[in-house]
Formats: sequence, C-alpha cells, structure tokens
Amino acid sequence: MTRTATTTTAHLVPVAPSSGALRPLGLDEVTITGGFWHHRQEVNGTNTLAHIEGWLEREGWLPNFDLAASGRLPEGRRGREFSDSEVYKYLEAVSWEIGRRGGDDELEARLRRIVARVAAAQEDDGYLNTQFGRPGQGPRWSDLEWGHELYCLGHLFQAAVARVRTRPDADDGLIDVARRAADLVCDVFGEGGDERICGHAEVEVGLAELGRALGEPRYVEQARLFVERHGRGTLRDIEWGRSYYQDDVAVRDAGVLRGHAVRANYLASGATDVAVETGDDELLHALDRQWDATVARRTYVTGGQGSHHQDEAFGDDWELPADRAYSETCAGVASVMFSWRLLLAQGDPRHADQIERTLFNVIETSPSAQGTAFYYANTLHQRQPGSEAEADVVSPRAHSSLRAPWFDVSCCPPNTARTFASLAAYVATADASGIQLHQYAPASIRTTLADGQEVALDVSTEYPASGVVRVRVLTDAASPWTLSLRVPAWASGASLVVRPAGSGLEQRMPAARGVVSVERPFAAGDEVVLELPVAPRFTRPDSRVDAVRGCLVVERGPEVFALESVDLAGTALEASDFADLRLDAAVEPREVADGGVVVAVVDERTGARADVPLVRYHDWAERGPSRMRVWVPVVGS
Amino acid sequence: MTRTATTTTAHLVPVAPSSGALRPLGLDEVTITGGFWHHRQEVNGTNTLAHIEGWLEREGWLPNFDLAASGRLPEGRRGREFSDSEVYKYLEAVSWEIGRRGGDDELEARLRRIVARVAAAQEDDGYLNTQFGRPGQGPRWSDLEWGHELYCLGHLFQAAVARVRTRPDADDGLIDVARRAADLVCDVFGEGGDERICGHAEVEVGLAELGRALGEPRYVEQARLFVERHGRGTLRDIEWGRSYYQDDVAVRDAGVLRGHAVRANYLASGATDVAVETGDDELLHALDRQWDATVARRTYVTGGQGSHHQDEAFGDDWELPADRAYSETCAGVASVMFSWRLLLAQGDPRHADQIERTLFNVIETSPSAQGTAFYYANTLHQRQPGSEAEADVVSPRAHSSLRAPWFDVSCCPPNTARTFASLAAYVATADASGIQLHQYAPASIRTTLADGQEVALDVSTEYPASGVVRVRVLTDAASPWTLSLRVPAWASGASLVVRPAGSGLEQRMPAARGVVSVERPFAAGDEVVLELPVAPRFTRPDSRVDAVRGCLVVERGPEVFALESVDLAGTALEASDFADLRLDAAVEPREVADGGVVVAVVDERTGARADVPLVRYHDWAERGPSRMRVWVPVVGS
Repeated sequence: MTRTATTTTAHLVPVAPSSGALRPLGLDEVTITGGFWHHRQEVNGTNTLAHIEGWLEREGWLPNFDLAASGRLPEGRRGREFSDSEVYKYLEAVSWEIGRRGGDDELEARLRRIVARVAAAQEDDGYLNTQFGRPGQGPRWSDLEWGHELYCLGHLFQAAVARVRTRPDADDGLIDVARRAADLVCDVFGEGGDERICGHAEVEVGLAELGRALGEPRYVEQARLFVERHGRGTLRDIEWGRSYYQDDVAVRDAGVLRGHAVRANYLASGATDVAVETGDDELLHALDRQWDATVARRTYVTGGQGSHHQDEAFGDDWELPADRAYSETCAGVASVMFSWRLLLAQGDPRHADQIERTLFNVIETSPSAQGTAFYYANTLHQRQPGSEAEADVVSPRAHSSLRAPWFDVSCCPPNTARTFASLAAYVATADASGIQLHQYAPASIRTTLADGQEVALDVSTEYPASGVVRVRVLTDAASPWTLSLRVPAWASGASLVVRPAGSGLEQRMPAARGVVSVERPFAAGDEVVLELPVAPRFTRPDSRVDAVRGCLVVERGPEVFALESVDLAGTALEASDFADLRLDAAVEPREVADGGVVVAVVDERTGARADVPLVRYHDWAERGPSRMRVWVPVVGS
Repeated sequence: MTRTATTTTAHLVPVAPSSGALRPLGLDEVTITGGFWHHRQEVNGTNTLAHIEGWLEREGWLPNFDLAASGRLPEGRRGREFSDSEVYKYLEAVSWEIGRRGGDDELEARLRRIVARVAAAQEDDGYLNTQFGRPGQGPRWSDLEWGHELYCLGHLFQAAVARVRTRPDADDGLIDVARRAADLVCDVFGEGGDERICGHAEVEVGLAELGRALGEPRYVEQARLFVERHGRGTLRDIEWGRSYYQDDVAVRDAGVLRGHAVRANYLASGATDVAVETGDDELLHALDRQWDATVARRTYVTGGQGSHHQDEAFGDDWELPADRAYSETCAGVASVMFSWRLLLAQGDPRHADQIERTLFNVIETSPSAQGTAFYYANTLHQRQPGSEAEADVVSPRAHSSLRAPWFDVSCCPPNTARTFASLAAYVATADASGIQLHQYAPASIRTTLADGQEVALDVSTEYPASGVVRVRVLTDAASPWTLSLRVPAWASGASLVVRPAGSGLEQRMPAARGVVSVERPFAAGDEVVLELPVAPRFTRPDSRVDAVRGCLVVERGPEVFALESVDLAGTALEASDFADLRLDAAVEPREVADGGVVVAVVDERTGARADVPLVRYHDWAERGPSRMRVWVPVVGS
C-alpha cells in the first residue's frame, strides 16, 4: 500500500491517477501483437463495432439524437431510458479502437458523423438527454431513481476521456460536448445545489476521469460530492431496499459490495478515483476491504458477480447458486474497472488475478466467436437447451441459452467492446523501479522509465494454451531496473528463468505466487521466461457455498472449463440424462491437444462411463443449444 | 383411476365433482374438534379474519367498492389491480367460517355489510371491477395480461360457492352478484366471442365450481373454453415467455407445471374440474402426469412450489435452491386445490400425502402463531436475520426474514384464511364401499353411506405430536362397510389395530404405505387404531437437486424441521458462524418432549460441538430475527 508519486502524462489510458503505486502503460506504450486477446481485439474492431453501430441505428437509439436536434421529441423516441448511454459507450469503444490501430480514417469518419449527431442534440446550457426535459417528457432530474440521466452523462464523459487521450487534437466537438455537460452537472449538483445522486452510479467515475483528462479539479470535486452523498437515503425506498442503488450506507462505512452489481462496482470505481485524487486513505481502505469481502464471499469461480435475476444484485455471503447465476457481463466489466483502480493505487497482484479471471471467464464469455451475439447474463448451469429460434432475435435481457444479437437492455455489447478495444492498457504498468507485467499476451512494450531510460520489451507466449511467457529485452539499460511478473494464485510451482544475452547461461528460480522480480542492468537480448504450470486442475468450492457442495470445477491456467452436453455425442453417455452425470474425481483431468481437457464422467443411474472433453466456459453454446454445467458433482456426492 | 358415479348433494364442500372415485365429506359431515388444526382454525376464525378485514378497510381495498358505487372512481382508488380479489377471498373465508361454526350472527352481519358494498359497485350488465371500465380507467378487458379482471371474478365465484353451500337460503345477494357477473363473462368470452384468456388463471376453477353449485352447465362450459384456450398465444409474449401465464402449450399437451406457480396450479385445478365434468379422460391423464412430474422434480421438501423470485415461477427440473426458495404461500394453497381435485377424481393416496406435506410445511408456515402476520414467500434458508423494524410494517412482498402484517400484494393472508376455515372438508371422503380418512385430526364424522346407512365416527389423536390415530365407530352397521386410512409415504413400519367392541380382542396387522382398509359390519364401540411411526428421521435429497447436495433434512411425521440460530444460544456453538455448522449424521436425530427433535451439530471450523434442538419449520422466526436452514450440510460434505 505504498504510494509513490507518478506523473500524469497524456498516455492512451482509460485511467490515469495522479498518484498511486503503479502508473498504467497506455495503448501508445503497449501493443498486443498476437494470440488470444489480439484475435478478440481484431474481431471486436471489425465485426463487433460494425454490429453495434448497425443495431444502434436500426433500433432508433442513434436516431433519437436526430429527433432531439430537430425538435421532434418525444414522439418517435425509441429504446429504454438509458439508451443514450449505449451510443456513448460505442463512441468510447471506437475511440479506443482508433487509438489501438494508431488511426483509421474510416473509423474516424464514422465516429465524427455520430459525434455531430450527438452534439446537435445538446441544449444551449449543456443538457443532453433524449428522454427528459421536453414538453411531453418528464422534467430534467425528475426521476433520479430510474431516469439514468447522470448515468448517461457518465458514459459520455468516459467517451470524451477516450477521445481526448487518443486524439487530443480532435476538432469534432466531443470533448466540448462533454465539458459543457459536466459544467452543467457541477452547476446543478454542486455544493449548495441539488444534493441527490443518480440511481445508477457511473457519473462519479466519468467525472473523476474527465477531471483528470482535462485538468479540471471541479469535476473531480463533483465526483467526490456524488460519492459522499451515497447512503443518505435521498433516493426513494423500493421493494429491494435502498441497497439496490447503494443509497443505504455511506461508501466509507460499507463492509462489502451489495445491491445491483453493476451499480456497486461503478460506484466503487469512482470512489477509488476520488480516494486517490483527494488522498483519502480512509476511503481507500474501506474500498479495499469491500473488494476483499466481495471477492471472497460474493463472487463466482468465473469472476462473475451478482447472483439475483430479480434485482441484478449481489446475494448474501455465500449465496452463489450455479442455477440462474446472473453474473451480468456488465458487472464483469465494472469489477475489472474497480480491480484495476485498486491495483494502480496499491500494486497488489491479487487485483490483477481477479482481472484475469474475469476477463477470460466473464467478459470473453459474452461475445460469440464472431463477435456478433452476446450473453447478458452468464449462468453457470444450463439445465434446458434453448431454442435455435431464439438465437437471432432481440432478447429482452437474459433469457436464452444462446447468445443474442441485441437486447432491449443492451448495455453489455458496447461494454465488452470498449473493454476489448482498450485491453492493452491493462497489460503492464511502471513504477520508480521498473516495469510490471500483469496480463500475459504477445505484446510489444516500449516506455520511458521514471529515471528517463527508454525500455523496449517483446513478449511472446501462447498463453493461455501454454504457460510459458517469454520476455525479450530490446534495449540496453544505463542502470539497473526491475522487471516484475505476476504469478497467478492458481500457479503453484511456477519458475522464472533468466537468460542474459550472449552468455549461454541461464538462472532458474522458483516463482512463488504473487509477484516475481528480476533487477538487472538489462541488456538488449536478455530473456526472462516465466513458466506457469497450466496442467488442468480440480478446484473445490468454499464449503460455505451451499449450492455447489460435492462439486468440482476444472480449471486450466486462467480458464474455467465446463461440461457441455454436445460433447457427449458418440460416447457411452450420449443417452444419459444430463442431471445424472457425475465426475470421477479419482481420475485427474487429462490435458489433450491445444490445451483441451478430458475428464472421466459416470452416469450415476446406469453406471455408464466415458472420457469426455470439457469446453472452455467462454466457448460454450457455440455449437447450438445445449446443456452445460461449470460445477460438476463428483461420484458418490 | 376407476371412476364411480357419486351424487352431488348440497354438502358444505368447496369442490363437489359430479363424478369421481371419491365423494368429499363436507363441513356438515366432518368437524375438527381439537388438536393442531382445530387450534389453527380457532386462531384463524378470530384473530386472522378480524385482522384481514381491518387491513382491507384501512388499505382502501374495501372502500374502493364504495367509491365505485358512488361514481367517485378512478380518483382515490387504492391498491393494486387485483385488490378486489382479496375482498372476495375474505368473503369466501368468512362464509366457510360461518359454515364451520354452524352459524354466527356477528360474522354473518359483517359478511352482509361487505356483500352490500360489493353489490352496490356492480354495474347494470353484471360487470364488477374497481380498476377498469370508467372514464379515466382502462377499458374493460383491455389488459388481460396484467389486469386480473377475470381473475378477480374467479375469486368472486368461489366466494359465492362457499356462500351457496353454507347458506343456500341467504338473501344477501352475493350469489346473485356472482351469477350476473358469470353470465356477463359467458356473454363476452363464450363461443364466438372474445377468444382470449386471463393472464392469471382462476376464473376457470371459479366458473366450474359455480356451475356445479348452481347447476349451470353454461359456466362449466365457459371454464372449459378458457382451459382449452391456454397455449394458443393469445396473450402478449413477455420477457419471461408465455409459459409465465401457461399460454405456451395447451393444457392437455403439457408435461409438467411451469411458469408462475400460483397461476399454473389454479389452471390445473380448473382443468381437472373441467376434465371430470366433461368426462375428458385424456385431459385428466395429462393433468395427472403433470402432477407427477411437478411433485417429483419441481417441489421443495416442504411441498413448496416455485423457486424463482423474479417471476414467482417454477424453475427447471431439479432447480430447487434453498437459498431464495420462493415457495409462495399461495402456490401452496393452489397446489392443495390441484391435489385435492385429483384425489377426488382418482383416489390415489399420494395426492393426500402431498396435501398433508403442504398444509403442515407451507400453508401453516405462513401465519404467525397469533395469526396476524404472514409469510408471502417461504425460503428454506435464511442467511441474514431480518430486522425487528421490518416486523410491523407492510412488506412489498417477500423481503423480510420476519412475517409481515400485510403486503402491497396481499394475496396470501386471505388465501390461508379460506383454506383453514374449510379445512374439515379435506379430512375425509366416501365412496360406494365406505369412508376414507385422508388427514388426521381429532374429528367427529357423521355421514350417510351410498347404501343409505348412517355412520358416525369419532377420531381422537394427538397427531402430529403422536402417530397414534384412534377411530371409534359410534353406529351399528346393517351391512359391512370399509374404513380406509391413509398410510403416508414417510410412515415405514406402520400398523393397524382393530378392536371389536366388547370382545376384549384385538387384531394387529402391518399397514403398508398407501391405504390400509378394514371391511366389517362395524358396530358401535368398535375401534380402529392406526399407529404411524413418527420417530424423527433424516431425509436425503434427490441427487439431482444440486443446491442441497451433501445436506440432510430432519422430518418427524409430516413436519419438516429446521436449524434456527436462536437455538444455539447457551450451547458451545453460540459464537459460531452459522455458515460453518454441520450435521453429524452418524448421530440419529433424538426425540425429546412434545415431539421435539435434537440433533448433533458441529462447527467445521472450530470443531466445537453441541446437541441442538431443531424448530418445526412452520414455527420458525417466532422468536425474533434469526438465521435458519432446512437442509443442513453433513460433516465432511
């Protein structure tokens, strides 16, 4: 929890704290050059972005801005009260994608066309929302519980942050739109003004980062005010209680995240930003404590959060049924946002561990391989196969066993898109001593250390299929610096190998879970190789999680695997009732080609038995409707 | 599944099929004279009825009818769209209570005052609903999905049935009100008319019985039409699918109950009535099959049905988490209605078993000992104690660990009240061979057999505290008849003892699960004693119910027991985390005074150990906020 001063520069990062243990390296410093995540980024940048823009247009959520600009609202407005925000998340995703590609004229032109439509809808005083404020609509700020006005603006601010960091010289007007809206928010909700909060947290994290990006302390202060106002009961009580929107307890007094899981994590992210910017260690400690409790007691093995369908909310401690696990994709995105902010503030590798788990097993699970269909909720147990007929239609939300192209509440697709587009910014950080690698992917890293040295690294790996991560130093150091690599909590028995350039020697050392570091006057050609054991393993649940007692999950490296009914075809279990299948835990899971896993499965009713390949959880339901379970009961349980 | 003709007489029964295996004995033939259920009936008849009437008045649901009568609607209308139905259920409960008591001037006067207010609100053409049809309200029948108009009328019809059967000569007008409303329904929704259904089934069962009670085949035919129209998709599709209101599949084609659990059981009840009245064996078989599948795969150990909070619906097969078990009280009432109708049609004791389980562990769980606070949902696992502050306020629905005096959706209190008031009608039946006892309580039974013999019986028992049920015959028989007693499925090793009057002899025989019968020319003074073994027992879950794997439940007789945190006080486990407690299954549950049960409990973290008394599930949370679990994990699980 040491905090060293870092310099805020104009790097291409979504989060740029003015201080903290670690400085994030941006898209200008880290490029993912191949492998698992590069493939997803490519699919995201092509298929997914085009898919989302098409739906925003077709569903009317973009045309809502045109109606606003031409005075034709409220007639004809389409979509839910928060539909504006999907446009902003899309703009954010496109901005990061332009940054990732180092420019793209066609994408840039698309973005500018949309920005122009959004800007035309902004009112003279900076107000911007297609759902409120006109004759025939509710008055501005009249429904903070459900209206999502400030929530939408929070996403606008995050889009503007992406734009200002990736194209600081852009003259399209997005940054100005955001600035005018943020000024209005400060005027209305500032000290002495309206003292309420938004029912869906998001404006806090948006304002804090916009303040950092534009050097406007007023925005950070406004974020602080919103954070501090949570827990005062200014929002109406509802059937699920004020905990639903975190208006039950002050952020600094809470012990665990609760209520709506996306709201809770967005709020915690914004509160972390505020704590860091204001030097509020009490608040930071409170958030750290909440993260610990939430990850230990209210988080699925996939990293998913939120077990209730009804209110999209966290359950009580240990209330984590696989059945109807809600595990909303957006809660995964939001939890990565929270974990990343704590990681930057404190440097604790557990936060990076949680990010990895959530990226592979929640956020990557949402989109299809083609990036054009999505999960909103990510159940851990599908008892009845869905219907092919459901695959190509708009889903209300979370209702099919198959991914849907779009949702009436379509927060998740653009949320995954902005995360994937900016993913390189979550790979590595720097501090006064050197560079830290947090996520493993083939990458090119080039940055300037605090002492002014230029450092370039090349990371090559087939992670997660292989656990070998090879870091090649491309620059000669004037003085020693430290390369640190995260050793995930699951990686028992890892080693680190150091091969000084041209020496023909190698030094091998055990790498305990946490962080392993090498301090050297690195020379070009030096190699540091992390060897993570990725053999498949059984994982037992905490005995207090009732719903999966007597079950095991198979993991391999950072990936969670699942038993899927389509894999029973052609085995002795083809005709079995899926509910009767049991894992023979006496037989260790066996690795097969390309990091696949096979386990021994028994039908407890018939005694039939077969070796069955498991599917990576993030790949399930890619082969049509199926039954699936992540936690598999063991024989005799 | 033999069907013998029975005669419909004017007995005081809620269900009087014109044919079927068994003829129900009414409140004029069976009186519960003491013991467990008599106590509940007394509390219900005094405290609960007065409590409900007070709330109906205070919340405005009764005054809504006054507003309607005086043309002051829609302004001032209070309550949800189905609030009229609570008044009707209350009228039904009061009618049965008057029947139970054999008259009561004060209750009769209260009932008449309310009937007058309801009648004054009825429109000239028979339409009756305080929510629709006036200027400023939605048009009649304009929102069949959610408007509950036909649902409300279904409850009106059931109230009228109770009235016509308990006071056929009553001149208060309730029966006429119902008749006029039913005629309107037939006019609007009859053959060639509006072909839609109500989103909440209930009018089917109400119309069918009103038709039986008034000898109006047109009403039975209208019930048939509504039943047949389910599954045609005439209601709008919704987020949860048309299965929510059983408009997905035709009743005769379905394999299991699904969707909203109350709707599903009300519909199945009405469909059974229709099948019996029309001789539709295909439909009856389909319903029987659905009952089997639902009880086997979608029903909690308590008899509770419906595992989802969000849509108050059944889950998939084996999806029965104890956490957030919804198990709505009304679903319990509705499932008893369905089981009872199948029992009368077919005579299968499994239906009576299920009624017993549901009565003791769902319906009796809802009201407090004083009968003035209720559970809407009946969870099987309470992880966090509620707050005393929640105990005395109106609950939105299903949200507290403590019983609430009233709910915004307050269907459950009057639903339990009408069930308890009419409970004697579920105790015994007759057929051509004699009398069948299905539920055990101290009772006086007096009826006329099919051959014209008068038979009188006196049942004495301390059931369920004791398993001994003593039936004393009070009349001499002219010819042999058969006395049959249900041997519950849990009663392994039961015996039957026959003691002919004055003989000094006794004949003892084993009584296998199902039904045990004695055929004799019974004489006054003959005694038949059923001895059911009620020692406490561990029950294992079906291994396909994931959420309670590795757990056991303790049952004793028909009662389910639970571990409640208040019982840890003063033991070595007082300071334990409730989530760490495990059952030592090597130690059999031990019976203590008054049918209580003690088990050996271990703290899996500290190793601390204590003998802990369990609480009857229906009595939990009577001693303030607590943690509770029905399924307890065993040591080492």
